[in-house]
Amino acid sequence: MAQYKIIYFGIKGRAEAFRMIFSVADVKYEDVIIKSGDWPAYKQSTPWGQLPLLEVDRKQLAQSSTICRYLGRQFNLCGENPWESAKCDEYVDATNDLIEEWVGFTFLETDEAKKAERKAKFIATLIPNCFSKLESIKEKNGGDFLVGKKLTWADINVADKLQIIEDDVDPTVLEGYPNLKKFKNAVLSLPKIKAYVEKSGYSYKGLENNLGE
Amino acid sequence: MAQYKIIYFGIKGRAEAFRMIFSVADVKYEDVIIKSGDWPAYKQSTPWGQLPLLEVDRKQLAQSSTICRYLGRQFNLCGENPWESAKCDEYVDATNDLIEEWVGFTFLETDEAKKAERKAKFIATLIPNCFSKLESIKEKNGGDFLVGKKLTWADINVADKLQIIEDDVDPTVLEGYPNLKKFKNAVLSLPKIKAYVEKSGYSYKGLENNLGE
Repeated sequence: MAQYKIIYFGIKGRAEAFRMIFSVADVKYEDVIIKSGDWPAYKQSTPWGQLPLLEVDRKQLAQSSTICRYLGRQFNLCGENPWESAKCDEYVDATNDLIEEWVGFTFLETDEAKKAERKAKFIATLIPNCFSKLESIKEKNGGDFLVGKKLTWADINVADKLQIIEDDVDPTVLEGYPNLKKFKNAVLSLPKIKAYVEKSGYSYKGLENNLGE
Repeated sequence: MAQYKIIYFGIKGRAEAFRMIFSVADVKYEDVIIKSGDWPAYKQSTPWGQLPLLEVDRKQLAQSSTICRYLGRQFNLCGENPWESAKCDEYVDATNDLIEEWVGFTFLETDEAKKAERKAKFIATLIPNCFSKLESIKEKNGGDFLVGKKLTWADINVADKLQIIEDDVDPTVLEGYPNLKKFKNAVLSLPKIKAYVEKSGYSYKGLENNLGE
């Protein structure tokens, strides 16, 4: 069995989906935590000046979605055929667009008026556009998963992002999207994921100091 | 053989790498062009309100990197093993970060002072950080490709983005990165790619009216 390390900050942030995938797959990994104070020096040693990183037998892989997809593939969580794998990618990319805009107005935008304007547009337009599409995907696919009839890395990745938005933007954000809400709760209630989250104690908070950039 | 359609605007933009991949693979596709004037109405019929889309036997796939990766996989252009496939993903994602910031300051930023500030940071910091890393990847890997010893979809995707930056930001941007410059020229000089580009006549210009968003 390969030796895995996740290298990130001591928060959920961009690495939480990896940790959930390891838990679901029952695969051990070392959770290497970089402290905020150590980050400026450590940054120089990273391939792209960013975290998280995955180490597999000392070889490094960067970029959150890339790492998540790789783990999904290694642990047989990426659909039953190339089309299902591509659908996993599509749903992860579509929700990434949402999360990157959330990171943008929450942590990077310095103009207060612009911040408020972007947040308002996020709530009024971007969330409904994305969530109504995901709602209809869930409705059509039935069952507990986004793609096919088995858990995929996309389920874990997207459920984690829905939780971020619910926690940080609006706790009622999933009202009006009953299939999507049921999906998120089903994924995050999987016994191995629930046990991991209860044990880990990481918070979603802290990304503002640890953007890894 | 599956029936493929690319649905996009009549520009290179986010679909050019797909068209190059089809050319390299010698696979036929229909190039469906949506005119700017038709876009507001057509947008309603797209899954995420965005283009490009790929249709495979009438099933639709969205998101540029997702489509590119799927075509790479179908046409045997995604590395020799899961690690090489993941490295393709990493390099595409890292250069996406650059392109999304270029799209941001070029087309979306409306404040002129902020636009100039973001462009200056792009040239002074983001490009050197990304290009110096890609330069060392190319140097270590040798040959003409980013990953392994065979052409991958990541080579085509990244070379296309380097061309966008060279054309739009600074024609001398690859000076100082000899391996990267040689790589880009080698990929875009592959006979099937060169023949396609000469025949297609699409321009990189026009994205400002056709962001697909």
